[in-house]
Amino acid sequence: MILKVKNARLQSGDDLATLWVEDGVFIDTPPPEQLTKDGHESYDAGGRLLLPGFVDGHAHIDKSLWGMDWYENDVPRNLEAIVENERRFRRENSFDSHQQSQRISEQALRQGTTHIRTHIDVDTEIGIAHVEGVLATKEALKDKIDIELVCFPQSGMIVRPGTYDVMDAGMKAGCDLVGGIDPSTFERDPVEHLDQVFKLAEKYGKGVDLHLHEPGELGAFSVELMIERTKALSMQGNVTISHAFCLGEVSQEHQEKLAADLGENSISIATTAPANRTVPPFDLLRKHGVEITAGNDGIRDTWSPYGTGDMLQRAMFMGLKYRWRKDVELQKALYAITQGGANVMQLKDYGLETGCKADFVLLNSRNHAEAIVAGPVDRTVFKRGECVVEDGVLI
Amino acid sequence: MILKVKNARLQSGDDLATLWVEDGVFIDTPPPEQLTKDGHESYDAGGRLLLPGFVDGHAHIDKSLWGMDWYENDVPRNLEAIVENERRFRRENSFDSHQQSQRISEQALRQGTTHIRTHIDVDTEIGIAHVEGVLATKEALKDKIDIELVCFPQSGMIVRPGTYDVMDAGMKAGCDLVGGIDPSTFERDPVEHLDQVFKLAEKYGKGVDLHLHEPGELGAFSVELMIERTKALSMQGNVTISHAFCLGEVSQEHQEKLAADLGENSISIATTAPANRTVPPFDLLRKHGVEITAGNDGIRDTWSPYGTGDMLQRAMFMGLKYRWRKDVELQKALYAITQGGANVMQLKDYGLETGCKADFVLLNSRNHAEAIVAGPVDRTVFKRGECVVEDGVLI
Repeated sequence: MILKVKNARLQSGDDLATLWVEDGVFIDTPPPEQLTKDGHESYDAGGRLLLPGFVDGHAHIDKSLWGMDWYENDVPRNLEAIVENERRFRRENSFDSHQQSQRISEQALRQGTTHIRTHIDVDTEIGIAHVEGVLATKEALKDKIDIELVCFPQSGMIVRPGTYDVMDAGMKAGCDLVGGIDPSTFERDPVEHLDQVFKLAEKYGKGVDLHLHEPGELGAFSVELMIERTKALSMQGNVTISHAFCLGEVSQEHQEKLAADLGENSISIATTAPANRTVPPFDLLRKHGVEITAGNDGIRDTWSPYGTGDMLQRAMFMGLKYRWRKDVELQKALYAITQGGANVMQLKDYGLETGCKADFVLLNSRNHAEAIVAGPVDRTVFKRGECVVEDGVLI
Repeated sequence: MILKVKNARLQSGDDLATLWVEDGVFIDTPPPEQLTKDGHESYDAGGRLLLPGFVDGHAHIDKSLWGMDWYENDVPRNLEAIVENERRFRRENSFDSHQQSQRISEQALRQGTTHIRTHIDVDTEIGIAHVEGVLATKEALKDKIDIELVCFPQSGMIVRPGTYDVMDAGMKAGCDLVGGIDPSTFERDPVEHLDQVFKLAEKYGKGVDLHLHEPGELGAFSVELMIERTKALSMQGNVTISHAFCLGEVSQEHQEKLAADLGENSISIATTAPANRTVPPFDLLRKHGVEITAGNDGIRDTWSPYGTGDMLQRAMFMGLKYRWRKDVELQKALYAITQGGANVMQLKDYGLETGCKADFVLLNSRNHAEAIVAGPVDRTVFKRGECVVEDGVLI
C-alpha cells in the first residue's frame, strides 16, 4: 500500500509538502494511474514540521533506571567510584537490563528517536547479561527503532583480568562494535588497552567506539594511538571516539593536526555537549570532514539523574554549549542528531530523499530552530512508513 | 475563607502533608471549632510535589518575542552588534512591550514562577516606553505574579549621552532598582559609569543590579569598584551583580578575596549558569554568605532563541553546569530558584512556613531532584492562596 503524507512542513515558511511512501521507503510522486489502480492511504500532517527520525549516537540504554523507583544519587565524583558503585548497585538490586533498555528505548522513540547506538556494559560480574538483555530489546522493537550495540568494558579490561574473554563473548553474541575506555587514566596502559580493543575489532570484522574522557595532551595521545591503529588496520570509517574533550583542550595547532588526521582517517566523534567540560571543536572538525554525532549518554541511571531521552533537548544542549544562536548555526545541532549520526552509524538510506527509509517525526514547531529551543510535546513518529507513536503515545 | 491543601508532597518518601491558608497566607492548623464555625475549602494536591513559587531573579520580559512571528536570528556575536540590532528591530517593527512582557510573564507563571526581577531597556530612542509597558503588565498581573523592575541602560549611558536623564525618568516612573552594564568593556569608563549608577540609586533610595559580562581581572576590577561604592553608600544588601563570569575566572586566591568581600557587603549574585561561559563559584560564594539567584535571562528575543520561561529548566542548567548529580547537590539549584532568589529580591514572607504568602507550585514529581531533571508538565500554581494556573492552564 502507498502512503501519502500531506501538509508536511519541511522548512520554515508557508510551503507545505507531500511525501509518498511505499513498502516503508520514500518514493517519487506516483503516477495518477497507479494511485487509481492500487489506491493509497493518506495521512494529514496538518502543517506540522517533518524531520527525519533522530539518531542517538551515544547511549547507555542497558543501565537506565527509567520507570523504576527513584535512585538517590550520593556517588563520589570520580570514575572508579562511579563504576564500582554501579556494580554494587547491580549486585544488591534486581536489575533487568532487557526491561530497562526497552523502557528507555520506548521513551526515546516517543520523542522521535528512530536509531540508537548504545554502549553495553560487560564485565566479570555480570558477564554478557546486558548484551543479551539489549539484544532482546532490539528484537522486541525491531519494527520501531534500530539499535546498534557496542560491547563496552565499563569496568576496564586491563585493570580487570578476564574481561577480554567476556568482551569476546559479547562480540560473539552479536555486538556491532567494540568499545573501550580511557586507555591511560582508567586502564593505565594505553597501548595494551587499545591493542586488545582493535584486536577484537579485527577478529570480528567490526568497528570501534571508544569512551575517551582523558584531558588535554594525555587524551590527545590516546587519539593519536587510535589514529595509528585505524591506519594500520585500514579501519577508516569504522572508528568513533566518544566525548573526546581533549580535542578542544590542546593548543590550536595541535587541534588542527588532530582534526586533519581524524578527517583523513574518517574517524568520527560522538559528543554529549556537556555544560561542564570542554567540547570537541565542532567547526574545525567538520572542516576536515569529521563526522559528528550527538548522544544522550546515560539517562536516569546510577551515574546521573539527567536526561529524558529527547534528542531535541540534546540539540539544545549543543546549541547552548557551542553558543549557536543563529538559525543557520542551529542547523549544525540538527545535523548532529540526524544525518551526522546516520553517517557515524553508516546507516543506509537515511533521510527524506526518494529511496530512503521512511523514518520521520512530526512536530508542532514552525521551523527547525524552534523545534530545538522549544521542545515540542506530543510528537508523532513513523518508522519505515508505519506510525509507531501518535501524539506522544506508543502505538 | 480558609483553604486546606491536602495530600501535598513536601519531600521524597510516602509522607503527605496538609497545609492551611487564610487570607493568602500560610497558617497553623486551625482549631476544629474555627473550621466548624467558619467552614473551609479543600484542595486535594493528590500526592503532587509542592514547592514554593519559583523566583526568576534575572529576566528581560520587556524584550521577549514570545507569541510573535518567528524571529530569524542572524546577529553577529558581539555585544555592540547585538544591542544595535535590537534597537534597529524596534525601529523597523511594531513592538508592544506591554503585550510582550505580559505574554512571557504568563508563560513563566504557567510553569510556576511567581516572582520576577526584570531588567528593562531604556535608551534615547525608546525612552522609558518599556518601563511603562512592564508597569502596565505588573498592574495587570498583580494578583498572579510579582514583578520587580530594574531600569537598565542596555545601550549604555556613557557611550550614549542623554541616557542618564532617561534612566532618571525610568526610576521616577517606578523602577525598583538601577541597572548598569559592563563599565569597562562596553562603557569604556568604569568609574564614571558606576558613579552614575550609584548616584541614581542614592537619589531614589533604591538598590543596584548590574550586568557584568567582563572577563577575568577586568571584570574583577569592576566587582571591586562596586564593593567600594556599596561600602561608601552603606548599600549592603541592596546590590546585585548579574552574570559575573569573572568571579570564576581569576586566581583561586583572588576568588576567595572577592567572595569574602561580596559576603561582607551582602552583595548578591544572579546567574544563568551558561553552558558556554565560566560560572561564579557557587560553593565558595555561599560559604561567604553570598546570596545567589538564578535567572532565565532573555527568552526568545533578538538576542537568543532559547528558553521557555521555566525556572526548573534553569535549575537543570545549573545542575549540568556545576555538575550537581547527587540529590543533595541538586538542592542548591532548587535553592537558587526559590529561597535564594527571594533573599536577593528581599521578598518578605516567602516560603512555606506559617506566616508566608501562599505562593506555591504543584508538580507531578516524586521529589525535588526529579522535578529538576524531568521537567514535569501540567503544573498547578497558587498565588496568595488562589489557584491561578491549573494543570498548565492560566485561570
